[in-house]
Amino acid sequence: MHLAEYLFRRIHELGIRSIFGVPGDYNLASLDYIAPCGLNWVGNVNELNGGYAADGYARIKGIGAVMTTLGVGELSAINALAGSCAELVPVIHIVGYPSTAIQEKRLPMHHTLGDGEFGRFAKMSAEISSAVVVLKEQSDATRLIDETILQCCRSSKPVYIGFPVNLVKADVDPSPLECPLSLEQPSPNPMAVEDYAVDLILGRIRAAQNPVVILDGLAGKPHSLNTTRLFVQNSGIPCFITPLAKGIIDETLINFRGLYSGKSSEPTVLEQVQSSDLILEIGPRPTDFTTAGFQTEMPHIETIKFERHIIQMQFQGILGVGMNGVLERLSNILNQGEARSVSTASTTSATSTPPRSHSGTPDSQPLTQDWIWPRMASWLQEDDIVSADIGTAALGSVWTRYPRGAVPLVQFLWSSIGYAVGAAVGAAIAAREDEKESQGTRRRRTILLTGDGSLQMTAQEVSTMVRRNLGVIMFVVCNEGYTIERLINGMDEEYNDIQPWDYKLLPALFQAAPNTARTYAVRTRAELNMLLDDPSFGPASHYDENNPPPLRIVELYMDKYDAPECLHKLVDEIAKSR
Amino acid sequence: MHLAEYLFRRIHELGIRSIFGVPGDYNLASLDYIAPCGLNWVGNVNELNGGYAADGYARIKGIGAVMTTLGVGELSAINALAGSCAELVPVIHIVGYPSTAIQEKRLPMHHTLGDGEFGRFAKMSAEISSAVVVLKEQSDATRLIDETILQCCRSSKPVYIGFPVNLVKADVDPSPLECPLSLEQPSPNPMAVEDYAVDLILGRIRAAQNPVVILDGLAGKPHSLNTTRLFVQNSGIPCFITPLAKGIIDETLINFRGLYSGKSSEPTVLEQVQSSDLILEIGPRPTDFTTAGFQTEMPHIETIKFERHIIQMQFQGILGVGMNGVLERLSNILNQGEARSVSTASTTSATSTPPRSHSGTPDSQPLTQDWIWPRMASWLQEDDIVSADIGTAALGSVWTRYPRGAVPLVQFLWSSIGYAVGAAVGAAIAAREDEKESQGTRRRRTILLTGDGSLQMTAQEVSTMVRRNLGVIMFVVCNEGYTIERLINGMDEEYNDIQPWDYKLLPALFQAAPNTARTYAVRTRAELNMLLDDPSFGPASHYDENNPPPLRIVELYMDKYDAPECLHKLVDEIAKSR
Repeated sequence: MHLAEYLFRRIHELGIRSIFGVPGDYNLASLDYIAPCGLNWVGNVNELNGGYAADGYARIKGIGAVMTTLGVGELSAINALAGSCAELVPVIHIVGYPSTAIQEKRLPMHHTLGDGEFGRFAKMSAEISSAVVVLKEQSDATRLIDETILQCCRSSKPVYIGFPVNLVKADVDPSPLECPLSLEQPSPNPMAVEDYAVDLILGRIRAAQNPVVILDGLAGKPHSLNTTRLFVQNSGIPCFITPLAKGIIDETLINFRGLYSGKSSEPTVLEQVQSSDLILEIGPRPTDFTTAGFQTEMPHIETIKFERHIIQMQFQGILGVGMNGVLERLSNILNQGEARSVSTASTTSATSTPPRSHSGTPDSQPLTQDWIWPRMASWLQEDDIVSADIGTAALGSVWTRYPRGAVPLVQFLWSSIGYAVGAAVGAAIAAREDEKESQGTRRRRTILLTGDGSLQMTAQEVSTMVRRNLGVIMFVVCNEGYTIERLINGMDEEYNDIQPWDYKLLPALFQAAPNTARTYAVRTRAELNMLLDDPSFGPASHYDENNPPPLRIVELYMDKYDAPECLHKLVDEIAKSR
Repeated sequence: MHLAEYLFRRIHELGIRSIFGVPGDYNLASLDYIAPCGLNWVGNVNELNGGYAADGYARIKGIGAVMTTLGVGELSAINALAGSCAELVPVIHIVGYPSTAIQEKRLPMHHTLGDGEFGRFAKMSAEISSAVVVLKEQSDATRLIDETILQCCRSSKPVYIGFPVNLVKADVDPSPLECPLSLEQPSPNPMAVEDYAVDLILGRIRAAQNPVVILDGLAGKPHSLNTTRLFVQNSGIPCFITPLAKGIIDETLINFRGLYSGKSSEPTVLEQVQSSDLILEIGPRPTDFTTAGFQTEMPHIETIKFERHIIQMQFQGILGVGMNGVLERLSNILNQGEARSVSTASTTSATSTPPRSHSGTPDSQPLTQDWIWPRMASWLQEDDIVSADIGTAALGSVWTRYPRGAVPLVQFLWSSIGYAVGAAVGAAIAAREDEKESQGTRRRRTILLTGDGSLQMTAQEVSTMVRRNLGVIMFVVCNEGYTIERLINGMDEEYNDIQPWDYKLLPALFQAAPNTARTYAVRTRAELNMLLDDPSFGPASHYDENNPPPLRIVELYMDKYDAPECLHKLVDEIAKSR
């Protein structure tokens, strides 16, 4: 078996069905192996977008892959991979290298600095990857590939595989493929320590009058997602999520209480958290944006932090015990009679959903940020994928309540604008694959919420939506520039302005076939209500290759100074905290 | 004086008048100092394009600057900066950092990996920069800024200045500004060694029957450009240039002989070089693309290589002597009676210019690569700036003869497609500044030659051409994908295809004002002849703010399998050499 086939068979084994990226002369030879291995080459317009797409795909499918070429290609993608590292998204980055003979001769090849140093770029990627390997020898290549891919899965971070052209057709022993990679890790929970932890925590929960659960970013990682959900459901303890935990649990649960983000939370949320006497914090991952400048410490409230390999209590850390086993046992115990039913949940929720029907309201008022995001939320459907660019789109929409199964793709930590466009491409492809595999029973819409400044960064990737008939539903906030930056510095400065575009021309520029794209310009609440209430606008239609769902682009015109109240609060609190 | 003012005054002192980049929250505060220091903020659509623009600007003005924000911004730009490093273009990269207090507390800020490591990104840039500094203290900040900027100028490579927000308004002593940075380096030529070298080389030149000069990439760097030109002109020795040396000398000189690129050269060029008995190679910078796979060694011909700090002859290197002083003295001596006049130059040139007038030719033949590039060359004017993307555009056009003063912006070593679009923005701004400073006496056109696959990578930067009224003349080869890749691997594979766009819609998408943009679709030779011969199409008009020259976009439709003969040869020779 050729080494390239080995690599792509392993990738297929992980559940990956599409590979993102851009061809380049050092990776062309390996591209020939993609289709024969049952994989689909997407072909992005540039590498940054390819990296974002692989990240979006990985957030839906569990893991993703992107291919680039040495130097120019990989460095164009490196911001996307750094984002995957920050946000803990497993992406395999395969980089085409010149032959090992050329590397050994240190020739000044194109796509290098001309100094014979072929190791520079792998070193750069090492800063934002959990493993980096550049294959050199036929003899150990399959072992190195297996180890690197395993590390990607276990760390939930990007890895880097440098693949020289002369090894593409190298003959390797295919027998390791008979044994699928074992992603299971030995449980870190020796029973005695786990007993101790469970008893201790159960005692604290039973002693508390007003315990609350706060889910943070790491609660949603593969190693803990299922037990986290079980615990929230079985315990019935009032549960808050940070913005990073959006999408982890069903927000229609009776004990769901809303979004907690320190002092920028809704007052009722802040009050509930501050008046509790026990906080169970699952998967803590504090960031400045999600804690309003790290103002979340509440030393007067007892807090138990559940991390992957440690549980931290007031004055002790229980080592050698992970959250997974402990949460599972707590879930089982609390379900046998301890579950607290909180009947007032839906009325005390801070993020209530606005009434579903707006059709009758004659409302010529302009769109505002504080009106639009709850309105959008009421239009969301179960299992929607909502790719939202950081700025008013993400910070506005995350504060709304999501239907069951809906997930956001948002970079709250890395916060790279333009991400959501590429991520939507990857997610839409993942959703279509899921639909095919489920024989049409699972249908998910991919919705893109972005701003004009963000969209412009990566706008060419809308071409891939057209080329691959992805049927994404795009909403573009048209408010003349970087509004989030205006709030921070330079409200009226020209540097926060951008060139206004006519986004409705994108489908024509990309030569979308007739009837495969629709565009809308919306300026008033009545217009948006009419559009969202129109049943023909946004159904989660069955994907039919001969009649694919259309791309929809909705321009939302809003005032350049208008921002969601939650964003004002966030910026103010962060400024105060500095 | 505030530290930000100090930095921008130094930058102004270098001749920079425009700064490229994208605003971000960690650099917003310093942006407020740009206009007061007499600088112009360009505001690119994304950071990669900002980096390319700074590179294009630097190639015209001598040095450039780009500003980004920590993590997301700088990594988006890093491919462009790596290109500047490979191609030896001095660019100052200023990166906005969070406050030093936040860095010391190792807070998990947005735009980081959340691990408290603020040094990662500077480490990544160190691989592609000649100096990296992250300012920490008020006390040494001005000294570090001065040293880093000096290093940028001396190395002709990018440097990186990390600028924390809390130091923007730090009070510093402005007195160092009274003394401009001294870019002069102590001459490395002790007289005795220089005498020895000049005598030795003069002897070899006088003994030779058929000496030739070959200029390569490093001959055009600031430290050697003027003496190289003087030497070629005064010596009269037949002179060839490699593709990397395009633009260094006047191609209408009587002793100019054409483009030499190893075995992919025109046969007459190859024959002239191979039949010479002495090669004077100035500024060698071999790359695979410019030597057809390094097949340029001719051990049977005596070769003298002039490098910056060493002169290499057959079995010796003359150390401690640089090309600059030696070439200057050789120029003076050879001008006093040794100059060889080569009257047959214009007829033996391998890159002859086609006849200037084509209007009368009724020619409905389709456009082909081998026809179009000489045709374009005959339309070029003196001092034109030709930004050409690697692929058929650069590899085709560089083989044509340029008028006096015309310069290409091409990345023959780094070879990042999409570069030329951003570089054209930077170059057009530089050209306009020069025009203003010369009170309208110097007028240069900026011409962009790109392919469809290349343009799509960075297409949003055409928006900046519209926004800043840059009047660029764009030619887009529309041939359905990555033709250079097809020649290497996968002639008919879908991975080398792209989505066809209607580029004529770009001005409307970017909302160009009426009469500020014109678009053309050209399919035959007759159509192109008519367009290029139309005097109203492309004059180098005086820049008038109230009546700026229009953006012109010309689609050139060509067959997807058609490639310039020189490119076929190059790909074949490189394949053979592997």
